[in-house]
Amino acid sequence: MNQTHFLNARLADGSLCDLTVAGGRFSAVAPAANAPLTGAIDLAGQLVLPAFVEGHIHLDTSFYGDVWRPHIPCTNGFDVRERVAFQMRNLEQAAPMAERARNQLELCVAHGSLAMRSHVMVDAAVGLKHVETILGVREKYRDLIDIQLVAFPQSGILSSPGTAELLDEALKLGCDLIGGLDPASFDRDVNGDLDVVFGLAEKRGAGIDIHLHDRGTLGLFEIEEIVARTIASGMQGKVVVSHAYGLGDISAEALAGAAERIAAAGVAIMTNAPGDHPFPPVAALRKAGVTVFAGSDNIRDSWWPYGDGDMLNRANMIGYRSGFYEDWELEAAYDVVSHAGAKVLGLEGYGIAVGAKADFVALRAGHVPEAVVAVPKERTVYRAGREVARGGKLAA
Amino acid sequence: MNQTHFLNARLADGSLCDLTVAGGRFSAVAPAANAPLTGAIDLAGQLVLPAFVEGHIHLDTSFYGDVWRPHIPCTNGFDVRERVAFQMRNLEQAAPMAERARNQLELCVAHGSLAMRSHVMVDAAVGLKHVETILGVREKYRDLIDIQLVAFPQSGILSSPGTAELLDEALKLGCDLIGGLDPASFDRDVNGDLDVVFGLAEKRGAGIDIHLHDRGTLGLFEIEEIVARTIASGMQGKVVVSHAYGLGDISAEALAGAAERIAAAGVAIMTNAPGDHPFPPVAALRKAGVTVFAGSDNIRDSWWPYGDGDMLNRANMIGYRSGFYEDWELEAAYDVVSHAGAKVLGLEGYGIAVGAKADFVALRAGHVPEAVVAVPKERTVYRAGREVARGGKLAA
Repeated sequence: MNQTHFLNARLADGSLCDLTVAGGRFSAVAPAANAPLTGAIDLAGQLVLPAFVEGHIHLDTSFYGDVWRPHIPCTNGFDVRERVAFQMRNLEQAAPMAERARNQLELCVAHGSLAMRSHVMVDAAVGLKHVETILGVREKYRDLIDIQLVAFPQSGILSSPGTAELLDEALKLGCDLIGGLDPASFDRDVNGDLDVVFGLAEKRGAGIDIHLHDRGTLGLFEIEEIVARTIASGMQGKVVVSHAYGLGDISAEALAGAAERIAAAGVAIMTNAPGDHPFPPVAALRKAGVTVFAGSDNIRDSWWPYGDGDMLNRANMIGYRSGFYEDWELEAAYDVVSHAGAKVLGLEGYGIAVGAKADFVALRAGHVPEAVVAVPKERTVYRAGREVARGGKLAA
Repeated sequence: MNQTHFLNARLADGSLCDLTVAGGRFSAVAPAANAPLTGAIDLAGQLVLPAFVEGHIHLDTSFYGDVWRPHIPCTNGFDVRERVAFQMRNLEQAAPMAERARNQLELCVAHGSLAMRSHVMVDAAVGLKHVETILGVREKYRDLIDIQLVAFPQSGILSSPGTAELLDEALKLGCDLIGGLDPASFDRDVNGDLDVVFGLAEKRGAGIDIHLHDRGTLGLFEIEEIVARTIASGMQGKVVVSHAYGLGDISAEALAGAAERIAAAGVAIMTNAPGDHPFPPVAALRKAGVTVFAGSDNIRDSWWPYGDGDMLNRANMIGYRSGFYEDWELEAAYDVVSHAGAKVLGLEGYGIAVGAKADFVALRAGHVPEAVVAVPKERTVYRAGREVARGGKLAA
């Protein structure tokens, strides 16, 4: 079997190692021998990290790479329904979905993400069109990046008649998880909404990943319902609440109790560390044993103009927004975009170790805390030991 | 006189122009002629922005370029005195100050800042050592970047006997402004502290730039005192309150009144858009006519590990933290790191226009809003029309 040798790789613990890749996996990780080796790639002390995990993105609705579409404000404060309507109008005028999805995928890979969970819109208006397109894109990029798809009811489930059947069909077509959207404020029926979500998950053996923007005690109530159903249906470790803003604006006492129950149910929390409103307290949740992971969420779409597909920059933002200053805290911010994400996505063979997949990123930093604060854009990305991107550009 | 021609520069209004530089200033800005010109530099549609303004930095206390120094937490929550003590200990072990200052300066220039205001520590322990060193560094870099220095009483004025005299001496030596630090919580004497600051400013004809971390109504009270003294001493347009966290956690009514008075006094507000606590509301202050500008503040020092010296990234953070989504809001975030900073620093000849200094940055973006969300790291930086940095590295 062909072998590739990488010399002088700095691991997260600071040690300098030589790595050998065979059959797409690490076959040896040994202390650096400081000996030249014909045909080997000398990483010259660069930090080697397992490829980042993009835990929440929307491949179907980004305009990245398309013409600039200015953000449109809602009439009277933020309104999810109005925002969804803007999105429908924008998407009608946008470049073909497959092209926009590819632009975004390549952006993510170029920055070092080689595993991803994307939500894909399903509703009565678009039917399964988005799912079919993104399934096609996933197939084309299979060798480059691992993609999980969430059948996402962007217009609600009970609010958009026919959506339950479409979600079922989306799972049959190849989506890995069933999504959800604010069972209370959007569908106005927490039990009815969650009956469909958990019912379909059980029927199809699928995971669950629910968008939950509801704030304060309402958001907390919904999380408690999701936690209870997770335990009742034996789905520990297979359920995610994305955004979960409610955890960011409740009392410390309420949070402590909730965190303990969320951890016990194995429900994971996804945050992108939004800029101007409360979000789940990463440190407190991690301390209670909750798995917190991260995603870019929207990238230049109808919801907002931000996003760069760089999960190392996302770690920086998580640290910055969370007041993480000490080294162990910066390491925690990195964990959120890497190992924690890999755990939630159930990735097999994640890490830099013998037997693990040789999906990794090399960059100039002395250690993980420095990588998180410096966010070096010069990186080389390897998929199964093969260089696939360098300096923000995909290999030809 | 030698001329340099730059073809196909995209201005902020979207127009494509040819720029001519003579004697370090723009001598012509004309619609792009689409004609090749021997010896001209073709910017090929890149966005051309006047060089960014770094409005608040600490050249003497950063460890950027030195060995990594992990952040040390205070014993019991944040404590400015304890933090200053950590800083003293760290600085004793650090690389020579001139070397660290040069590393930081070059980082800023490489990202496109060609004007800067740096605070420089003055207290009974360090005396004028920091000021003398940074004055020397300023002199060495005079051709590359314009630097204003603030004599900064990092250990307070009344709390650190002899500091008032040292501040006076620092102004005589060449500092442009007199600084300050939390007159209430640090010096425990608002009037006594401000008597010294405004007294020295008047005596030496210097501007004022005061660090104010005090929160809530105490911070607001101090701002009101600074505003009243600014008007009483006829110093409108020459006084800055840096940080001004108090403006970030008061009622909307209190803020509205304060903003009006701050605007009337021509007092400017500096923010770096901190990550995990309230900061001055940029939009509301701008709407009231207050000049808000920005700085990196600390870069990898004893206060925190963050900071990258990139004022375009700072604009992105200001926008992200402020919930700026629309194009005009993203343009406002850019204004904070450019034209607003130039106004506060009193820079002569700032902008892309005939007669203005040819200090500019060229980068790939269709317009200002896109530059603020994309933060392209590939930039070319020109000082007086001459390339001084490209792709994050200074010209040899």
